[in-house]
Amino acid sequence: MKPMGPIPPDYAGRRVLTIAGMDADYWIDRAGDTPAFIYDMPAIDRRVARLRAALPESVGIHYAIKANPYPPLVRAMAGLVDGLDVASGGEMALALEAKPGRAISFAGPGKRDDELEAAIRAGVTLNLESTGEAARALAIGERTGVVPRLAVRVNPDFELRGSGMKMGGRASQFGVDAADVPALVRMLVERGADWRGFHIFAGSQSLDTAAIIETQAATLALAERLAWAAGHMPPFVNLGGGFGIPYFPGDEPVDVEAIGTALRHAIDTCPLTVSGCGYAVELGRWLVGEAGVYLTRVVDRKVSQGETFLVVDGGLHHQLAASGNFGTVVRRNYPVALAANMDGEAVETASVVGCLCTPLDRLADRIALPRAEPGDIVAIFLAGAYGATASPSAFLGHTAALEVLARAHQP
Amino acid sequence: MKPMGPIPPDYAGRRVLTIAGMDADYWIDRAGDTPAFIYDMPAIDRRVARLRAALPESVGIHYAIKANPYPPLVRAMAGLVDGLDVASGGEMALALEAKPGRAISFAGPGKRDDELEAAIRAGVTLNLESTGEAARALAIGERTGVVPRLAVRVNPDFELRGSGMKMGGRASQFGVDAADVPALVRMLVERGADWRGFHIFAGSQSLDTAAIIETQAATLALAERLAWAAGHMPPFVNLGGGFGIPYFPGDEPVDVEAIGTALRHAIDTCPLTVSGCGYAVELGRWLVGEAGVYLTRVVDRKVSQGETFLVVDGGLHHQLAASGNFGTVVRRNYPVALAANMDGEAVETASVVGCLCTPLDRLADRIALPRAEPGDIVAIFLAGAYGATASPSAFLGHTAALEVLARAHQP
Repeated sequence: MKPMGPIPPDYAGRRVLTIAGMDADYWIDRAGDTPAFIYDMPAIDRRVARLRAALPESVGIHYAIKANPYPPLVRAMAGLVDGLDVASGGEMALALEAKPGRAISFAGPGKRDDELEAAIRAGVTLNLESTGEAARALAIGERTGVVPRLAVRVNPDFELRGSGMKMGGRASQFGVDAADVPALVRMLVERGADWRGFHIFAGSQSLDTAAIIETQAATLALAERLAWAAGHMPPFVNLGGGFGIPYFPGDEPVDVEAIGTALRHAIDTCPLTVSGCGYAVELGRWLVGEAGVYLTRVVDRKVSQGETFLVVDGGLHHQLAASGNFGTVVRRNYPVALAANMDGEAVETASVVGCLCTPLDRLADRIALPRAEPGDIVAIFLAGAYGATASPSAFLGHTAALEVLARAHQP
Repeated sequence: MKPMGPIPPDYAGRRVLTIAGMDADYWIDRAGDTPAFIYDMPAIDRRVARLRAALPESVGIHYAIKANPYPPLVRAMAGLVDGLDVASGGEMALALEAKPGRAISFAGPGKRDDELEAAIRAGVTLNLESTGEAARALAIGERTGVVPRLAVRVNPDFELRGSGMKMGGRASQFGVDAADVPALVRMLVERGADWRGFHIFAGSQSLDTAAIIETQAATLALAERLAWAAGHMPPFVNLGGGFGIPYFPGDEPVDVEAIGTALRHAIDTCPLTVSGCGYAVELGRWLVGEAGVYLTRVVDRKVSQGETFLVVDGGLHHQLAASGNFGTVVRRNYPVALAANMDGEAVETASVVGCLCTPLDRLADRIALPRAEPGDIVAIFLAGAYGATASPSAFLGHTAALEVLARAHQP
């Protein structure tokens, strides 16, 4: 038997799974079928409210759409957060349906000219990834007669410790090396761009609260150093994100209240603040990751050479990360439960395998479960971020995942 | 500098990349833009012809659609091969546009009742994955009044040595354990099903010619043993596939001529043959994998901390496998070249990174290349199988991959 990660607090300890007050069958009816992703909007509301209460008032909250771009969810998030961060022309078009251009920023190392132009025309802030991109953006601004809103994404000279994806402290396709930033800022200002400040993202999915606090302080210090070297005070600093969520056995959540307290102190003592600089944290996974549940139905139950397999109608074409095949080296189990019998005694060890005709499609490996039969619903948690869109949906010709935004219901 | 895998023989040693007689710019024009997958149909024709010449006449060739379900390619393949193997209702619908049901078989551990019924009505052979699935198929046959065509997929008690994905010799979601097969066959025959024989798939992506030969012999021996134990001679045995293609440094191609010679001997001496059993090999990757080239354009060229990055407009949303994030533990470089300068002197070490805003999106890591500038086309080889559909196409909201089936052109 192998361990599973922790079921998120909103769902743990229940007898029967409920999402926004209603049970799995209700949401499957609403979706029309299994498999389906159900996104728990009341849980997200609470999450944002908790973060608001923890952060200083001067720090805005941005939602990184890449984590979950399901359009109803993006529209709902737009009403809760101060800004939307996008990573492509497609995400930008979606964001512009929900927020004005000035509340949107666009990062990404391979922005094409057509994407740069669309952003400039819409008043979206471009987080510049290189001097070459800066030159292209300025040229498009001049050609179109629109003053571009340009921030400089900095490749920091430190990394976020404990992060699942390190994005600093090394050669990178992201951002401009810190040493090259002051000259670029001066050039942008001289060329008449609307320089929007810095975007500094040192890593993601860190569960180390102390490391996040230390990184935010280092980020502010770097922004200050770069501002002095450039001779221009930034109007805004996007401090990045990096708050992780617990996926695996032994993972503990980050302490956002401690982060908020430390950030308040760091901002209060930062000279940039005195000059009127605004701030934001940019979060995706932390805001929505725990609020998604992937519901899939058992199609077959079989025993092979003494091992029990629950074959479900979902699979890695919808939830690649849960199969351990996306950005992970060692496969570990996401939290999983039977929706109608979450607290039943675990009477057997079973593997939950998807419907794809490949041995990669294993959603849970030898976990302890109550007995499940064909027709039962398996809930795979932590499906709110990097789920449906971060999976090869066309693989093997199965149907696309259904998605539902679950709003508050009276149970 | 890190090594790359071998460029396939159809493209290696050229000065400028040509596909089916025409250069990359021609095919990008045909696709309409970059990034684009170009599938080289003349190369596939030659591949199938080579396999036909190598195999005994009594062994059919099946194409496993999962490797590349691009509809024009599937239609072209249908004219070259004897059967199509599918893994979902979606793939089955596609196959039925190109072949009659009797030339199609459907394998996969999570077939839903609606998929079973569609297959039975269309006369498609179901490769049964469990006794539970057998019971459901028989019930649907009785309810619909259509005699179902049912083969038994066997979980063999051996594995294909050297295979990238082992599918035998262990507990598995695929197939019925060999020990349980005879009773299942007797039950199928007694219940009046049209029993179509066995499907035995021991692994995939093996480059070990001797292991493939040994596995085919073991597969025939297993089929014979199961037939005797069941008391029924199979009309057909699908011998599986497993022929690999060279992806990485040091990989050598399989010797299909040696495999064909050995298989001829094995079949000539197999008692099943005397009783009229037919055979097929089921291949996907080996038929089409080397015949696909992913063409992507350099958007930015940047140097960070002394390392050179070529940022392209493609990425892991189209070619996940090349980024090393799908089913691999250690990231290795696929073969890559500049389309317009394949044989130029390698003057620098560069990493080819995709346009996605994630450090996972690295298509080639520190390879030696001639100098490339924005606008240049990078060719990433071995993109014919498990490319576009095995990648998270919606990730980060970029555009879907363009695809073109390249037919013969006079250069």
